[in-house]
Amino acid sequence: MDIYFQPDLSQGVNELTEEESRHCIKVLRHKVGDIIIIVDGNGLRVKAKITDAHHKHCKFSILEKEKNSINKAQIHIAITPTKSSDRIEWFAEKATEIGINHIDLYFSSNSERRKVNIERVSKKAVSAMKQSGQSYLPEVTGYKDFKSLLKAKEEVTQKFIAYVDFENQQQLIDLVEQDTSAIVLIGPEGDFSQAELQLALDSGYRKVSLGKNRLRTETAGLAACHILNLANR
Amino acid sequence: MDIYFQPDLSQGVNELTEEESRHCIKVLRHKVGDIIIIVDGNGLRVKAKITDAHHKHCKFSILEKEKNSINKAQIHIAITPTKSSDRIEWFAEKATEIGINHIDLYFSSNSERRKVNIERVSKKAVSAMKQSGQSYLPEVTGYKDFKSLLKAKEEVTQKFIAYVDFENQQQLIDLVEQDTSAIVLIGPEGDFSQAELQLALDSGYRKVSLGKNRLRTETAGLAACHILNLANR
Repeated sequence: MDIYFQPDLSQGVNELTEEESRHCIKVLRHKVGDIIIIVDGNGLRVKAKITDAHHKHCKFSILEKEKNSINKAQIHIAITPTKSSDRIEWFAEKATEIGINHIDLYFSSNSERRKVNIERVSKKAVSAMKQSGQSYLPEVTGYKDFKSLLKAKEEVTQKFIAYVDFENQQQLIDLVEQDTSAIVLIGPEGDFSQAELQLALDSGYRKVSLGKNRLRTETAGLAACHILNLANR
Repeated sequence: MDIYFQPDLSQGVNELTEEESRHCIKVLRHKVGDIIIIVDGNGLRVKAKITDAHHKHCKFSILEKEKNSINKAQIHIAITPTKSSDRIEWFAEKATEIGINHIDLYFSSNSERRKVNIERVSKKAVSAMKQSGQSYLPEVTGYKDFKSLLKAKEEVTQKFIAYVDFENQQQLIDLVEQDTSAIVLIGPEGDFSQAELQLALDSGYRKVSLGKNRLRTETAGLAACHILNLANR
């Protein structure tokens, strides 16, 4: 069944957004009386009946409600925007399908790209959330630099930095514990600067490897996200 | 250092292919005397010096050879071409980065797409192999149907089919054993037919889940590939 996104569902809003109305009525040609699923991105999922098939303000009445409880083991992946922006959007889509709570975009001193379109990244997350039948939408946040990212993540329980150190090749999957929040920092194409690495270590981050191969930024982010999901299976 | 692909390296060929010559000489403007890395996709990796910087027939002399032994735990992922072909090409790229030996493309009775360009998929694998610094190229093979795929894979030791059965939700990561070959069959967008599922079970395949979320074909393929890599870390 088609899934639609209405973030204000819990505030009693009973119509779809303009974009979702268009998709529901113009593209998928739903009529009054059709049953659809709507999620609010915050765990609320309802079954609803269309009462006004307006192509900009599609109204519905709720038949059934279901509230999914939030995962205690919150997954945070902090990643730098890639040179080609479709790679980071691809990351947002795939990480959302697999399971992620926080997509944290930051700029490293070695980042080649200095701008990111948060809205485009969020849209990828919304469509992947709907596609994969989930009711929680990951939060997409931008941080102007590495320092402000670390400051914002102080409360996360398990902290990792994906940094390959040939003397100390500990793998993320062997270190991560289940049932508590975790963050993995993924470096830019040019890797972290020594100052950033030191700052992370001083802030309680542990160096981890994600496997034997050299991975691109977005692949490393997805591999880390998948490992945190496997730990909490 | 730049990596080039010359599949006939072990037969004494001492020039790059036309495509690789163009990239080396025209795009990256290498000169006589420059040092490059060349792999044959079959574990051989050499350090070579350019002796003739010809833009179609770049010649080199070998300075150092290194032969990497093949992984005993061969990883096979059998997957159906997706409706949009860039998704299966994306799978080939990412699976190669993470580590895969056999990319097996087959047509299921529920496949929406009935054609696949094996050459384009192979090219993605070649560029991902070079990008991630590997010397083995995954084999990309097409199978006309499910039956011929199963027939070709009889010798693989561990056989899995990604099929979600709510009564028997065993996860791949809990079942897979390290150090022996494994295959995971990934279904098409419309899932396996009952006849295909039965045929796989009769051929010794075990049903496995890849996690709690509903994944797209190409995401499921990548998740399975990553899990097999983690089991052999």
